[in-house]
Amino acid sequence: MRMYDLIMKKRNGRALEQDEINFMVEGFTNGSIPDYQMSAMMMAIYFRGMNEEETLNLTMAMAHSGDVLDLSDINGLKADKHSTGGVGDKTSLVLGPMVAALGVPVAKMSGRGLGHTGGTIDKLESFEGFSVDISTEKFIHNVNSIKMSIIGQTADLAPADKKLYALRDVTATVDNMSLIASSIMSKKLAAGADTIVLDVKTGSGAFMKTEQDSVALAKEMVQIGKGAGKHTVAIVSDMDQPLGFAVGNALEVKEAIETLKGEGSKDLLELCVTLGSYMLFGTNNAKSIEEAREKLYGTIEDKSALAKFAQFVKAQGGNAAPIYDTSLLPKASIIEEIVSEKEGYVEHIITDEIGIVSLILGGGRETKESEIDLAVGLVLHKKVGDYVKMGESLATIYANDKEKLKAAKERFIKTYSFTSEKREKPKFIKGIIE
Amino acid sequence: MRMYDLIMKKRNGRALEQDEINFMVEGFTNGSIPDYQMSAMMMAIYFRGMNEEETLNLTMAMAHSGDVLDLSDINGLKADKHSTGGVGDKTSLVLGPMVAALGVPVAKMSGRGLGHTGGTIDKLESFEGFSVDISTEKFIHNVNSIKMSIIGQTADLAPADKKLYALRDVTATVDNMSLIASSIMSKKLAAGADTIVLDVKTGSGAFMKTEQDSVALAKEMVQIGKGAGKHTVAIVSDMDQPLGFAVGNALEVKEAIETLKGEGSKDLLELCVTLGSYMLFGTNNAKSIEEAREKLYGTIEDKSALAKFAQFVKAQGGNAAPIYDTSLLPKASIIEEIVSEKEGYVEHIITDEIGIVSLILGGGRETKESEIDLAVGLVLHKKVGDYVKMGESLATIYANDKEKLKAAKERFIKTYSFTSEKREKPKFIKGIIE
Repeated sequence: MRMYDLIMKKRNGRALEQDEINFMVEGFTNGSIPDYQMSAMMMAIYFRGMNEEETLNLTMAMAHSGDVLDLSDINGLKADKHSTGGVGDKTSLVLGPMVAALGVPVAKMSGRGLGHTGGTIDKLESFEGFSVDISTEKFIHNVNSIKMSIIGQTADLAPADKKLYALRDVTATVDNMSLIASSIMSKKLAAGADTIVLDVKTGSGAFMKTEQDSVALAKEMVQIGKGAGKHTVAIVSDMDQPLGFAVGNALEVKEAIETLKGEGSKDLLELCVTLGSYMLFGTNNAKSIEEAREKLYGTIEDKSALAKFAQFVKAQGGNAAPIYDTSLLPKASIIEEIVSEKEGYVEHIITDEIGIVSLILGGGRETKESEIDLAVGLVLHKKVGDYVKMGESLATIYANDKEKLKAAKERFIKTYSFTSEKREKPKFIKGIIE
Repeated sequence: MRMYDLIMKKRNGRALEQDEINFMVEGFTNGSIPDYQMSAMMMAIYFRGMNEEETLNLTMAMAHSGDVLDLSDINGLKADKHSTGGVGDKTSLVLGPMVAALGVPVAKMSGRGLGHTGGTIDKLESFEGFSVDISTEKFIHNVNSIKMSIIGQTADLAPADKKLYALRDVTATVDNMSLIASSIMSKKLAAGADTIVLDVKTGSGAFMKTEQDSVALAKEMVQIGKGAGKHTVAIVSDMDQPLGFAVGNALEVKEAIETLKGEGSKDLLELCVTLGSYMLFGTNNAKSIEEAREKLYGTIEDKSALAKFAQFVKAQGGNAAPIYDTSLLPKASIIEEIVSEKEGYVEHIITDEIGIVSLILGGGRETKESEIDLAVGLVLHKKVGDYVKMGESLATIYANDKEKLKAAKERFIKTYSFTSEKREKPKFIKGIIE
């Protein structure tokens, strides 16, 4: 078999067979197929597309290109949640404890990525002493005993995807729905869960800007998951404004804690209940979605999710005291209000720009080496559809550096647009793809 | 400027500007733009195409990526002929002496390529002592004094094209008309001639298999040539059977000599007169194509072209005696007839397979290091439309190795197909694109 022939075949609009895709992924991973052939193939796929079978085969080949986690030592069916990423997304911090409190094992291997804020691990490091550098034995033990643990990236999951994504990223071949779906799902399948619940964001703060694209991506991913024999569902949720109110690491932890206390963002709680209901149902921990939703609301009312969160933080060496007194979380030295210079209903928030504001303040990573400032960020007071008077506060900014604060404020003020006409609050859950 | 953005632009169907194409070609040539980005770009161009302006700009950028020959020391307007390549193509050996005999300077820099037979230089080495390893001074001097010289590849002509073609060759991005035209024309433009006459072959022995494709390529090349300010014309000629009768180096030299004596293939002479007439007209050596044709036929009648050929061979150290006694050319040790096992009119000859037969006998190069056997090859006795009786000779094979002869004969016999119905001889000159 020759890669040249496979490129020609795809270029001419024909579908690749499973053995051809396996040959291509193996060769690319071990270096016998050079980058320049793979990038030509990716561009051919961009133009010709892949059918459902090809997409599944590519995903499976990438999922098996490195380590595949073996979670068989964990009792019961495992559920994994994946978000396509957005601004102010602290879902994992709320959802994990909720489902774990109901007996669903949450076993997560997680890395530190680039982004507007840190990832879940960075956020959890707002708790002094918290660490993901634990042994596999302790990880398994914790999941079995308290149903929730996070371990750092020790295994080499889907290296083919990592290499391929890096190549697509510099050759303008990222935005093909099948390739995006395949990339995400290959990592999820290598991570070993039985049930996969996907949170596909849509809007100005998401990778997918339109609802149509988000639904298409959700469908592709669900098809792959089912093709791989996993119980898979996707929720399409709004990211045309930040999720909840807080953006920034410790600030998001605070909002997550408030939500676990029943005092946080309604959208965030609704998202967690929706995602969680499919995790419960998919792992046979509920007989129906309705029953699952009731159980999940119950973990907020009886504070069992909050207690689970504290238990989890302590089990990984963290000081859980801030869960009961959020004033103990990392604090910024400068706190300022951003007041509105206009009056009217909030029409639109350029959400990815809100992420940039957090990044400018020091809350995220621009390069792998960047240090994250856990204390900085912003808390919005007005969201789309809210009425704002002149001089009223739009948001509170938390900073540790005056120069950064200045740059962040200048950027922030351009993210809000207003209208004199009253407008509906946008629908938050856009769709559920099963 | 970033290559990423240019790939994206082309991928999305937009035309690249001149400065963008220059950036891309310079960067690719000096290595600052990696292969994997260029191959993605080539695939995007395959799908999106290039307009006339982009094609011209790409050609000019590649033509200027290395040395551009300065032929200003040669008196008069220079003409260059280029063939897209075929089987039995000894045109240069006949055409060069014909036009040189009429005062058109023929100044050629030539390399040794891969192929079914050797290139023009290899063929000329059938004359003992002939060499293209001459100084630039001698080259210029010869062209000025006798109007014809060939020098080996000393300058680095269009290195961007060389590098790009090698990449396209392994990424299934060769067959795009604009890219093919641009590749050929960049080398021609770097070679410094004022008038460019193109011989675009069409048929089973050509790069372009259909007349439609050949005409399209011819049009693209003529557009580029004119856009670059050169007098350019393209002849589309038949390559659905070998040109003339001989295939193989010394055998083709013999046929060329016979043609210069007026005793050779009529098709070959017609092609040379047609190509030559545009070379004469384009360099102001004739007032009309008709006048040019008459003059060219005159060089055969008065033997001035034959004399010019001998003068040229001698001027580069060769023993010209075989021109007047072709039995002095290199000779094969085994000569065998291939007799027909069928009867009927020759319907079709798989021409590229005839080329392979020559290659198998040792007449061509499979790799750059291959040694060429100048003596071997074949001479056809029957061409398309000819009637063949059972047991009549289809061709004479010249070999120096029994094993190779056996393999060549087996391959040869499959190249001819027959029909019981009389058929017209195919039209040889298919079109002229000005």
